[in-house]
Amino acid sequence: MNVIEEFEGVKEYFSPRIISEVNGQLIKLAKIKGEEVPWHSHKEEDELFLVKKGSLLMEVEGMSSFTMKENDMFVVSKGVEHRVSSEEECWIMLIESKSTKHTGEVESAITKSFDQQQY
Amino acid sequence: MNVIEEFEGVKEYFSPRIISEVNGQLIKLAKIKGEEVPWHSHKEEDELFLVKKGSLLMEVEGMSSFTMKENDMFVVSKGVEHRVSSEEECWIMLIESKSTKHTGEVESAITKSFDQQQY
Repeated sequence: MNVIEEFEGVKEYFSPRIISEVNGQLIKLAKIKGEEVPWHSHKEEDELFLVKKGSLLMEVEGMSSFTMKENDMFVVSKGVEHRVSSEEECWIMLIESKSTKHTGEVESAITKSFDQQQY
Repeated sequence: MNVIEEFEGVKEYFSPRIISEVNGQLIKLAKIKGEEVPWHSHKEEDELFLVKKGSLLMEVEGMSSFTMKENDMFVVSKGVEHRVSSEEECWIMLIESKSTKHTGEVESAITKSFDQQQY
């Protein structure tokens, strides 16, 4: 499986696509453009972000916000409030537990259920 | 943290460097050149391979061997015998459980202990 080809198949923003699984962790690809992701946290799970294209503004509680560029990696630890946004289209790879909802306990317009998704 | 910069800090072949952790899974970077990895399996853990540079020959029991190129991803399921090699230098990102030894239960010249490694 080629990650770039899989990204090309992602047609919607803020709609993570599961491409693989390793030891109960899901590998997801998402395209981000705009500020629709609300502040949220994941109570029990860490979330890894790896930027594949473009740049991502990462805001994390208790830290200065910072911009992630291509091949930058950052892990938001469990329970930590965070928000991501991007003015231009940005491609990100995520690693998170099977049980992680992408907007945490916060329901928003972009909240998706992955229960039925195949990969 | 930039993954490419972290790769540049890896000076030895077959010596995975732990760069991050997410939900008990370790993110490791390795440079491969040659055929020193023995056939092995990991009894209880899957192992994810993502090629970042170059090409990797992947051999997996019960499958035809295949070559992975940049941005190709493959998961070796737990218990499955496998071996990787590369004629030219190849950079790979690995995701595996904290408990995974990179040569499984097979002790070889390249077997390392990660118990003391910091990241």
